[in-house]
Amino acid sequence: MADLQAIVDSVYYDLSDRIGEGKLADYIPELATVDPKQFGIALVTVDGQTHAAGDTETAFSIQSISKVFTLTLALGKIGDGLWKRVGREPSGNAFNSIVQLEQEKGKPRNPFINAGAIAVADVVLAGHLPKEAIGEIVQFIRHLADDESIAIDQNVARSETQTGYRNVALANFMKAFRNLDHPVEHVLGVYFHHCAIAMSCRQLAHAGLYLASAGRNPLNGGSVVSASRARRINALMLMCGHYDGSGDFAYRVGLPGKSGVGGGILATAPGKASIAVWSPGLNEVGNSQLGSAALELLAQRTGWSVFGQ
Amino acid sequence: MADLQAIVDSVYYDLSDRIGEGKLADYIPELATVDPKQFGIALVTVDGQTHAAGDTETAFSIQSISKVFTLTLALGKIGDGLWKRVGREPSGNAFNSIVQLEQEKGKPRNPFINAGAIAVADVVLAGHLPKEAIGEIVQFIRHLADDESIAIDQNVARSETQTGYRNVALANFMKAFRNLDHPVEHVLGVYFHHCAIAMSCRQLAHAGLYLASAGRNPLNGGSVVSASRARRINALMLMCGHYDGSGDFAYRVGLPGKSGVGGGILATAPGKASIAVWSPGLNEVGNSQLGSAALELLAQRTGWSVFGQ
Amino acid sequence: MADLQAIVDSVYYDLSDRIGEGKLADYIPELATVDPKQFGIALVTVDGQTHAAGDTETAFSIQSISKVFTLTLALGKIGDGLWKRVGREPSGNAFNSIVQLEQEKGKPRNPFINAGAIAVADVVLAGHLPKEAIGEIVQFIRHLADDESIAIDQNVARSETQTGYRNVALANFMKAFRNLDHPVEHVLGVYFHHCAIAMSCRQLAHAGLYLASAGRNPLNGGSVVSASRARRINALMLMCGHYDGSGDFAYRVGLPGKSGVGGGILATAPGKASIAVWSPGLNEVGNSQLGSAALELLAQRTGWSVFGQ
Amino acid sequence: MADLQAIVDSVYYDLSDRIGEGKLADYIPELATVDPKQFGIALVTVDGQTHAAGDTETAFSIQSISKVFTLTLALGKIGDGLWKRVGREPSGNAFNSIVQLEQEKGKPRNPFINAGAIAVADVVLAGHLPKEAIGEIVQFIRHLADDESIAIDQNVARSETQTGYRNVALANFMKAFRNLDHPVEHVLGVYFHHCAIAMSCRQLAHAGLYLASAGRNPLNGGSVVSASRARRINALMLMCGHYDGSGDFAYRVGLPGKSGVGGGILATAPGKASIAVWSPGLNEVGNSQLGSAALELLAQRTGWSVFGQ
Repeated sequence: MADLQAIVDSVYYDLSDRIGEGKLADYIPELATVDPKQFGIALVTVDGQTHAAGDTETAFSIQSISKVFTLTLALGKIGDGLWKRVGREPSGNAFNSIVQLEQEKGKPRNPFINAGAIAVADVVLAGHLPKEAIGEIVQFIRHLADDESIAIDQNVARSETQTGYRNVALANFMKAFRNLDHPVEHVLGVYFHHCAIAMSCRQLAHAGLYLASAGRNPLNGGSVVSASRARRINALMLMCGHYDGSGDFAYRVGLPGKSGVGGGILATAPGKASIAVWSPGLNEVGNSQLGSAALELLAQRTGWSVFGQ
Repeated sequence: MADLQAIVDSVYYDLSDRIGEGKLADYIPELATVDPKQFGIALVTVDGQTHAAGDTETAFSIQSISKVFTLTLALGKIGDGLWKRVGREPSGNAFNSIVQLEQEKGKPRNPFINAGAIAVADVVLAGHLPKEAIGEIVQFIRHLADDESIAIDQNVARSETQTGYRNVALANFMKAFRNLDHPVEHVLGVYFHHCAIAMSCRQLAHAGLYLASAGRNPLNGGSVVSASRARRINALMLMCGHYDGSGDFAYRVGLPGKSGVGGGILATAPGKASIAVWSPGLNEVGNSQLGSAALELLAQRTGWSVFGQ
Repeated sequence: MADLQAIVDSVYYDLSDRIGEGKLADYIPELATVDPKQFGIALVTVDGQTHAAGDTETAFSIQSISKVFTLTLALGKIGDGLWKRVGREPSGNAFNSIVQLEQEKGKPRNPFINAGAIAVADVVLAGHLPKEAIGEIVQFIRHLADDESIAIDQNVARSETQTGYRNVALANFMKAFRNLDHPVEHVLGVYFHHCAIAMSCRQLAHAGLYLASAGRNPLNGGSVVSASRARRINALMLMCGHYDGSGDFAYRVGLPGKSGVGGGILATAPGKASIAVWSPGLNEVGNSQLGSAALELLAQRTGWSVFGQ
Repeated sequence: MADLQAIVDSVYYDLSDRIGEGKLADYIPELATVDPKQFGIALVTVDGQTHAAGDTETAFSIQSISKVFTLTLALGKIGDGLWKRVGREPSGNAFNSIVQLEQEKGKPRNPFINAGAIAVADVVLAGHLPKEAIGEIVQFIRHLADDESIAIDQNVARSETQTGYRNVALANFMKAFRNLDHPVEHVLGVYFHHCAIAMSCRQLAHAGLYLASAGRNPLNGGSVVSASRARRINALMLMCGHYDGSGDFAYRVGLPGKSGVGGGILATAPGKASIAVWSPGLNEVGNSQLGSAALELLAQRTGWSVFGQ
């Protein structure tokens, strides 16, 4: 599919003079040390072809993108029971806001804001020691990406553990409302470590392919989730995947996506492809500035949109 | 397309013993007088076929569904300039909340909450007397539905004018922030009247068809908006079309939709069909209870979802 | 009482080089036309002696200070029944905030924020035409001050009526919660007019004397309210009289007081004196900057404080 | 002063058939084990006379009343520098709300809500190990009450440490905004322990006497704080001492007071007396139900009010 490679190349080329734009996340000290002049685009089609441009082999901290995978695991464990613990509505607030959590009595609005992902981590932890739960998450992502080299960046995990006071606040607040079953430190141990997983664009696009192909991994034919669940995870990504910039992303790009403060975004073109972009500089609502621009161009040039042709 | 008719019939049949469920809107007195035991489903495919079941010829108050059409008109007038006046993010609040409006200095979060639609009405009013602007809106909808019989229910308009104190509050609040150009009474005159337009499911499904077919009206071949604008209106409907139940609707139904407190919902299956459902009883977040259930079943049985197959 | 006059003079003198400080209220256009370089202090003791310095004979717009008098009237009409309509707690918000009003279902937090005073105006209006209610308020204040020349500044009343969109919003919002008995325009007519009453410092200090002397007017011996009610009005002034600067005023000055955006402040030294200060420039929370400073110095130099010697 | 004893007795007697009213605090498990049928009133005049009725020798958990004493210590250490860290305004929210803390970027509204008292504990901790800071606080209170037997109830301290998730959340939230200098666990260690101090009504009334007598302890003539600081602490108690019931307390009782969820209230009649009441059952805003009623009656019968005679 020469066309797609040409599109990916053109998007990379057209944005290459903006590499370095945006602002590094600074609330996790380790993330502030990343070289901002990096930019990659990797696209894997549902028939298994990969198209890449730029820094697609460099591992970066996937941060909140990991929440897509822990959500998938938690739904596998308790199914729709999850929605007693977490809502499914956009938050209308910043990713780490605690206001909503007080107003709604400790139930986070969705699984992609920090509080919601912490509740999801609590579900993944059931029956496990923290170390085992972390191992299970890493193993699941390796399996999805078919790549055993994926690992946690321990410096990032440590940095976040030392400075993640707002997340400690969120977790304790939920604990006060009895919305966490396990000790706060265990839950946060799982959360901080899965956020610190490092992956390249290529690995990430592979790992997300099940969302674009009806829940199956087309590379090996295995089923990850049902087609219905894949659709629903895409729905959650579209509604809530970019915090308080989700509406803007849906309007401009028109594809489900999940961003992370490490500068990565994973997007789904259902029936077409899984796409991962990465550039560390963030825009004012905390999403990769160049990554967002790349997905907007890519959607225009491919004509991919969930909202019509 | 016998299949689709069979599906529409089966959905109607399977839900028929729940007709009358939900609670009538009571804050507009005139709406509380409607017979709750009504239920209709109308579906028009992009190749112009109509499939209907139940009360699809009875006109009902479309209320907030009208906001889709005024948004279309306002985008036609000032394009992306609209977004200086109104945001594009889900609100995380009830449809008539004023809290967000204070926090965000008079800029409504999106064009589908009441405050946003009032700002849109202000845009439509530019260069017109209120009566002319109302006439333009009605004429536009008649054109879209190809039906000159569509009209405003004056009893509903009067009822809303007499009791719409919250909307008066919202409009004055925006006026205080200089986010309305015209006199408050003029803007509200337009708003209350377009919300009082009465249409049947069949008319509504026809009127919304341009959103499913790349901006063109397939019945007469005319272009209503560009394909890109149609996608973007669908995006806004998906993100914000069901107030604080938008996430739930996206998760369960997976199609862009806009509900009204009259019990109607207009939904888009891009590239496939425009669908209108109606049943007056509302659920706890103000969306038609049976209408939501009908769209969920219909999406399941047709396999239509913007999030994959 | 030469001492007191000397103190008043010294306070005026020590602050005289700061005359003109602060920022004129600009949201009511007419108030923005006042000469900012004015400053007056008038103090009337419970035994009827007046001590004055500066511009104490110039009438200014008393604005929210009028709320003390309408509250007194409303308590006279319905007593503690008022507290079903209005709360007695500090608001923790700006004077014209609507957020609290939504969260607490249309019941204002106290009678001194705008929403609360509008509800009080609704009580005063009972059984009257707006014009009569306004007349009653003016008459009551003339009686308190023993001065028939006190009148409404019609320019200010008109200016506020034309631009008071936030107050229109507040009133309609309460009406939506059925917390106003009369038509919104009637209630606001009363409210805008009593806020536009013009008085001099000397008149204002006289009018407030009943609050310092156990509910009686020591000039003519007449009883205005019971001693218990005078105490309670003082309590409300202390808790809520300076909007979101009430805590700061209590801390620095230690006397019950009520400010207005016209730059006036009426303060009570129970058992000692009634004090009115005026200078049009406001601080960042909307209270007279020089007036606050004058009361702080005066309290220090007299040793007057409700919190001990 | 036979009169005062008679008044204290009459208040106790008139309320004695309501003993047991209200609801025990249940969020600290240890507090829920207290016998609710207890009620005491102790009053110490500025000339050192004690009048008591009921259970005035039983030690109870003073909880938030301890915040008066830590505030006094913190002001002694850094004076008005404290107000860079903590505000002086009523909160308009529940005692443990985190909403305000997010909106105001980690600066608590006043030193008597939990977040504010945690910031105060951080100040008291400066230059100390937690154990030393706790010791200093206990020693200060023993000195004020002239009673070496006052001690921390270790069961309560442990219970609160194990279940105080909301306080852990508040502290971490402030730490995220860099409004705590010391490790969160150290600060909370101090906070949880000073809240767990146990005192009798008699001890508490003695300890608070400096607030009623211009900053001096009339029993031994020693100066605790300046007269000006005593007034200001009283001002803070009046404005913020009863959480979101402060306005109601000021209106009904008219004296500065600080309540604790253990059912105690310490009140100041400036120039007259220090009063401590205790009964474990709380009203709906978390203040002692019988204690509030007792202070209201006592204020009526003594004629004591800061707002006039």
